[in-house]
Formats: sequence, structure tokens, C-alpha cells
Amino acid sequence: MRALVTGAAGFLGRHVARKFLEEGWEVIAFDTRESDVEGVQSIQGDLLDVEAVDAAVASVDVVAHVAAIGDVYLAAEKPELAAAVNVVGTTNIANAAVAHGKRVVYASTWEVYGEPEYEPIDEEHPCRPDHPYNITKLGGEMMLLSACELRGLSGVALRLGTAYGSGLRPNSVFRIFIDRAKRGEPITVAGDGSQGRQFTHASDIARAFVLAAESDVSGIALNTVAPETTTIRELAERVAARYPTEVTFGPKRPGDVPPSTVSPKKIEEVLGWRAEVSFEAGLNELMDELEAQES
Amino acid sequence: MRALVTGAAGFLGRHVARKFLEEGWEVIAFDTRESDVEGVQSIQGDLLDVEAVDAAVASVDVVAHVAAIGDVYLAAEKPELAAAVNVVGTTNIANAAVAHGKRVVYASTWEVYGEPEYEPIDEEHPCRPDHPYNITKLGGEMMLLSACELRGLSGVALRLGTAYGSGLRPNSVFRIFIDRAKRGEPITVAGDGSQGRQFTHASDIARAFVLAAESDVSGIALNTVAPETTTIRELAERVAARYPTEVTFGPKRPGDVPPSTVSPKKIEEVLGWRAEVSFEAGLNELMDELEAQES
Repeated sequence: MRALVTGAAGFLGRHVARKFLEEGWEVIAFDTRESDVEGVQSIQGDLLDVEAVDAAVASVDVVAHVAAIGDVYLAAEKPELAAAVNVVGTTNIANAAVAHGKRVVYASTWEVYGEPEYEPIDEEHPCRPDHPYNITKLGGEMMLLSACELRGLSGVALRLGTAYGSGLRPNSVFRIFIDRAKRGEPITVAGDGSQGRQFTHASDIARAFVLAAESDVSGIALNTVAPETTTIRELAERVAARYPTEVTFGPKRPGDVPPSTVSPKKIEEVLGWRAEVSFEAGLNELMDELEAQES
Repeated sequence: MRALVTGAAGFLGRHVARKFLEEGWEVIAFDTRESDVEGVQSIQGDLLDVEAVDAAVASVDVVAHVAAIGDVYLAAEKPELAAAVNVVGTTNIANAAVAHGKRVVYASTWEVYGEPEYEPIDEEHPCRPDHPYNITKLGGEMMLLSACELRGLSGVALRLGTAYGSGLRPNSVFRIFIDRAKRGEPITVAGDGSQGRQFTHASDIARAFVLAAESDVSGIALNTVAPETTTIRELAERVAARYPTEVTFGPKRPGDVPPSTVSPKKIEEVLGWRAEVSFEAGLNELMDELEAQES
């Protein structure tokens, strides 16, 4: 079986591409940059190039659609770009998959929910996103699921927890905290740091993509989050325990996603997936790896 | 005061442009086609042309953003176009309005709600659209309102009832029923025709745009619907009462919006708007006008 992994030059896409390879799939990478994952065939292309998307989708069995403007800061700065890539780009993927009868697994996000109305949040919870990143990821999800309902597409959306693991972007909260602590600079937490996150290891998420690709579950969204909740304050304190430094508290970021607990119950029932990497193990692995890169 | 009316060459945009003129505003029309509304300055431009949008928005006080892929059939056929125009295009409008400190009144739709969870539907009701038209209109709305929340934009979204009135598109249900009945052909209703619609006259909607433009209500969506509910069956029977023909019932359309009652209470409180044209009067006016055009 062949998978097209979009965004396979990025942090999460690389994990997804490697997992498909491990599980015996052939992998075609589709990204604006060349993918450095060993063993993939790399196509450099843009999600907004309809012909390139069509040809790439036609050549595989399943699309793992990870590519997006996934950097919340970039999405805030260029919301029109986030709208184009995340909504129009995903629609281009859905169109090609409908045309060629291919399956799509879409990287959505737990951030689509907005303020929790009840917890734990299941997939029936209303979606009230309020940031260009979350809004456009939900837009892509809705376009994909409507193609399932109206046009016979086989597809599923994974509402991913906050992903972490090797190869994280330098502007992720993990990298910012670790880099500052290692330089002995104080770590500044936005707000009081009580906002919880279900940090989900990229290797667990990658496994969910393979399971979803191999199933025929269609037309639904599935929360794909680790059960464990860690506050930003705990993250800062864990980092500061390894690299002693001061933890300070700054103003709340506007548009920051409110804390909430998201239930991964349905994906366990439907795909048999559950996160396996504990936060402690995953964070230590990440810090070990960043040290190894320096030496 | 000057208003930029996007989509001013289309059905609803023409009504909106005329109403602004009537109320003493200067009007700039922005559309891919030239607007035939007398007394407007017509700019031919595309919502996806960032520079054209920016220049047009800079030249006015308020934007009445009506332009969209508003034809549900076209949106279903070309979802990527609906995503581009309705989400990216609206984001371009919002960006320009943020940059130049202008106000935006956005044409959203009651169809953003999807299946009703309670009725009448107020603005707090969850949005679960499932058709490329509704999804992309909600996407544009969310991008606009997030610019209000995060970037200080002054803007409001009007969730419009199903608009009707002079200049309706030939593929609207009104025109299809009237044209068929006049030729003595049977009128075919999708499903059992029990689906209700709060048909809202374009002149009422146009008045809501002017009221919203003149207010400083911001960051919210307002249901802008007539209180009266008419079923599709009643519409068919009213048309057949004037032009005698048979009314038949066909299969339900996939993706058709479920019946629901939407509350216009908030807009009455906030803007003092309520629909004034009764459905009977509005439909008779439309049929009179179509007859006059023929003779």
C-alpha cells in the first residue's frame, strides 16, 4: 500500500512518514520543501497547485494530510495564508481523493472546540474556534467531512492533541522553555500557567494515522489525545528541574486556547488507539535528544 | 459617509447598494462584474486580489461585504472556489479593514447552524454546517469575528434568512417554481416540502446592512431573518394558485438544510431591526415584476 504524506518535511509529517514506512507502506512525501525522511519519494509541490495535488493523490491509496500552516504565530500574522492553505488546500486534497476514489486521514486539532461547555470534551461538543489557526483547521475538517457525506469520500479527521517530540519547531513552547533554561534565562509562562494541555507524543499521533489509514471508518472526527493533562506551569517546572532557572509569569496571550480536558474514548473504541508515551518519558527523550545534537 | 458594497452586481448586493444610496451614503461597488446600480461608482475587482481589495477598502468608511459564492449549486460543484472566495476573500477584506481602521458588515447565513438542537435558534446555538456553501460562509464569519477579537476590527456578521426579491437568480427556488408554473409545467418539491424557511425580503436585509453600518456593535453575529416561516410546499401552492399547475414531490436533496426556526430577537434589541415585508406581499411583488418584464 502507498501513502501520500503531505507536510512530510515538517515536524509532525516526518513522524507520520516514518511510521508508515515502519509499518511496511510505501511513502510519497508531498511538501513545499524536500523531505529528509529516508526511504520516501519526495514530491515538492504546493497544496494550492490543483494539478500537482491531483497527480500526487492519484498515485497512492491513502492520503495522510498533515500539511498546513500549523504555526499559530504565522497563522495570526497571515490569516489569509492560513485560510488558503488550510481550507482551500484541504479542499483540493478532498477533490482529488473524490475524483480518484482515495482515502484521506486529516490532521485536525483539539483546538477546534474553543471554550469548553462540558468536560471531558467528546466529539459532539460544539466547535467555537476563535483564532485563525483553529478556525482554518476546522474549515478544512468541515470541507473534508462534507465531501464524505455528499460525495462519497472515504475520510476521517483526527483532532490531535498538542504534539511534541523530536524535530519540534524552534518556536514551540517546549523548545522556547528548554532553550532558555539551558542558557540560564528565566522561563516566562503566559498567564498563571494553569492552562492544561494533553501533550501527545508525535510517535503516538503517527501511529493513529496508520491505524486510521488502514481502517474504513469514515465521515467522522476523532479526538486523538493522550489522556494525561500537564499544565504549562508543570512543563516549565520539569524543564527547570533539569536545567535550573527561574520560572516567571507573564500576561495571558490574547486568543490563547482555554484549558479543557478532551476525551480520547471514541478513538479507542473505533480504532483501538491509545497514547503509549507518558509525558515524563517523552519530555526526557526530547531533552536528551536536544543535548545530543549540541555535543 | 461612503460604503463599499462587495457583490454589488449580484442579486442581494444590488439591493444593499441601493439602500445605502437611499439613506444618503456614497456607494462604491466592488464586484467581478460591473454593477448596474445607478449612482454607484463601480470597481471591477476580485476578492482574491489583495491589492485591489486593500485600495477599495481604504477609500470608504464601511464595507458591506456581500460578495460570495452564494449559489449553493456552484459551491457544491466547486468547493475549492467557495473556500477561496468565501474564506480567503473575506479574510482579505478583514485584513484591509484592520489595516485602515474601517468597519465591516458581513453577509453570513442562517444556514451556518445545521441540524437544530433547540428552537428557536438563537446566536448561541452551535454551528454544524455540512455543505460547502454553509461551511465556507461560516469560515468567513469566524475569520472576521476573530479579527474583531484579536486585532481590534469593528465588525458584525448578519446571519441572513433566505433572501428573495427582485433580481433573484434564475436557479433560485422562487424563479424555478414561477417559471415552471407559468409554462404550465408541474412544480416539483424536494422531499415532502415540509421544510420551513424564513424567507426574508432583500429590501429588509438591505436595511439591516445600513443599520449595522451606522451602529458600532462589534464582534458578534446577529440572526437577520423574518419571523414568518413558510414551507416550500406553501411557496409552491402560492405560486400554483396564481399560475395553476400541478405540485409534485420528488426525492429529498442530499445536503439540504434541515427545517428550523431562527430567532431574530437579538437584532431587534441591538439594532432595532425587524423585517417589514410580509411573505405574501413580497411574493406577489416578485411575481408582478416578473410579469412586467415579459410584457
